[in-house]
Amino acid sequence: MSDVIRLALEQVHATAMGILATHGFNLPHRTAIANTVTAAERDECPHHGLFRIPFYVNAVRAGQASPDAEPTITSLAPGIIRVDAHTGFAPLALERGTEPLAERATQAGIAALAVNNAHNVAPLWPEVERLAERGLVVFACTAAAPYVAPAGGTKPLFGTNPMAFGWPRLNRPPLVFDQASSASARGAIQLRLRDGKALPEGWAIGPDGKPTTDPKTALAGAQLPFGGVKGSSIALMIELLAGPLLGDLLSFEAGERDVANTGAPCGGELVIAIDPVRCIGGGDRTAQLEHGERLFARILAQQGTRLPSDRRYEARKRTLKEGITVPRSLYEMLQTLGR
Amino acid sequence: MSDVIRLALEQVHATAMGILATHGFNLPHRTAIANTVTAAERDECPHHGLFRIPFYVNAVRAGQASPDAEPTITSLAPGIIRVDAHTGFAPLALERGTEPLAERATQAGIAALAVNNAHNVAPLWPEVERLAERGLVVFACTAAAPYVAPAGGTKPLFGTNPMAFGWPRLNRPPLVFDQASSASARGAIQLRLRDGKALPEGWAIGPDGKPTTDPKTALAGAQLPFGGVKGSSIALMIELLAGPLLGDLLSFEAGERDVANTGAPCGGELVIAIDPVRCIGGGDRTAQLEHGERLFARILAQQGTRLPSDRRYEARKRTLKEGITVPRSLYEMLQTLGR
Repeated sequence: MSDVIRLALEQVHATAMGILATHGFNLPHRTAIANTVTAAERDECPHHGLFRIPFYVNAVRAGQASPDAEPTITSLAPGIIRVDAHTGFAPLALERGTEPLAERATQAGIAALAVNNAHNVAPLWPEVERLAERGLVVFACTAAAPYVAPAGGTKPLFGTNPMAFGWPRLNRPPLVFDQASSASARGAIQLRLRDGKALPEGWAIGPDGKPTTDPKTALAGAQLPFGGVKGSSIALMIELLAGPLLGDLLSFEAGERDVANTGAPCGGELVIAIDPVRCIGGGDRTAQLEHGERLFARILAQQGTRLPSDRRYEARKRTLKEGITVPRSLYEMLQTLGR
Repeated sequence: MSDVIRLALEQVHATAMGILATHGFNLPHRTAIANTVTAAERDECPHHGLFRIPFYVNAVRAGQASPDAEPTITSLAPGIIRVDAHTGFAPLALERGTEPLAERATQAGIAALAVNNAHNVAPLWPEVERLAERGLVVFACTAAAPYVAPAGGTKPLFGTNPMAFGWPRLNRPPLVFDQASSASARGAIQLRLRDGKALPEGWAIGPDGKPTTDPKTALAGAQLPFGGVKGSSIALMIELLAGPLLGDLLSFEAGERDVANTGAPCGGELVIAIDPVRCIGGGDRTAQLEHGERLFARILAQQGTRLPSDRRYEARKRTLKEGITVPRSLYEMLQTLGR
């Protein structure tokens, strides 16, 4: 018996929809979440795929997250739109915010979306890709549960605080990156614990503040920012942008609120969209994008390089035809969860 | 005879003004540059202090930069202001852009300043600090001469591409960081060459693409981004934001234009300003900033940490009273340059 199950992407979507329906998620929420989970499986980002479904369910079961709150949209300023998720999950809030944000960015040249009170265990690239596909340049960031020590420190304080960036391309999907400001994903440490493998150096420190390569010690201690002081500054910036700037929670506050330890913290997300043509005075959009392409060509002319998101897009071509695989253990757990 | 000269900050300013006047810089330009250079010496960032004066002079002598171009300001969109420096230097362009950018950010909640055609050898923190002092949250970035290989690659392509961020604080100067997306400053490698010291690992590769700790080999090869692939993604983002987004040069293009190899490349700078109070619907500004302070207190409660810019602010207190020192060799060279 194979230890993996092969699923078509339609089956991934149906599986997610079924489990979420069982647990009281209304149609808009379960559709938005199933879309995100399916997109992650499609792009071979399994840690944001079906693996995440229990996080959504547990946060609702714990009474912390709402499975059916309708996000509300407010215009805070000509350039600022707020979507309050009312403790629902982020995917629907972001879906609802896309159109108003794009509209404002096109009108004013630049605009921001403030997502508030959203439980967020999804990647950032789906919303960034969606907006970049409309020709916008996009930046997004969100805080998270407190796992990461500030540079020089020894105790968890920052979230793994991802930031994502999108740039539209000519006749092909946008360039998008989405990266944690921690040296590694927390899941990567958990996987190494499960598999009895040591961590690379630079990922974590133990509760004593000393570097460790032992996954268990690392999980009891703190993760490290990527790139030392500079990565730590970026993590700090993201705390401020997704938290106090939006009147929302810092990672340590979100951690304190997550009393049931669901790993699905509540908080803010900032998305900034820029209309590139407005930045050149309404000039030639094609020439502007071709300019970016010249940089990409120079990068790819160097052996050993690749562009952010190219790996995801290649996976996408493959999985749309062939489907994906999930571990049998995960599949069985999901079957149970869906009953 | 001491090998350093002690100068009051007024003397630093007067020295800069004098040399720049000798070389045809008009009053607005020489004042803006002298202010920036003096601020850098005041904050003990000597690589952006008097040391930079020859860069300004050489770029003018080479006929590449203008010592007296008047920056022109255009409104490209409700949220986008352009300052065209017309091949003058960045400090005056940024000074001229501060007020219109702040005004637009206050009106719309978010706005961007596109600086074009500016020769830029200054740090980013002066403009970021200036805007953050007015209560705005600020992000700035600029490309530079091509010294840095993309992750996985072996040839210089990206600039050292700094990004800076500012966050206003209550009753004290703003939190500001300003960091290159390369592992080290180019000047740090040049200093080690001069002093016959090896480089730390991870700073550079040689022309053969292999890691090197030899400064000369490194300068002939390529610098590396900080933090591997993630730092490389940030360098790439900055290339796009300061170049094609603004209709301005990529680092490799700026390098090609700098035929006299002045090290003072021409290009764009993007500054984004956000009015934080507009992001919380016009709520309580003090409470919002206190929220940030709670994070800073948690960081500083951990031994071994410090906040970005605190070192600069401490230096500032000291140098305002005691003045600064410059190497005698630099001082003598500047005396010659001023004749």
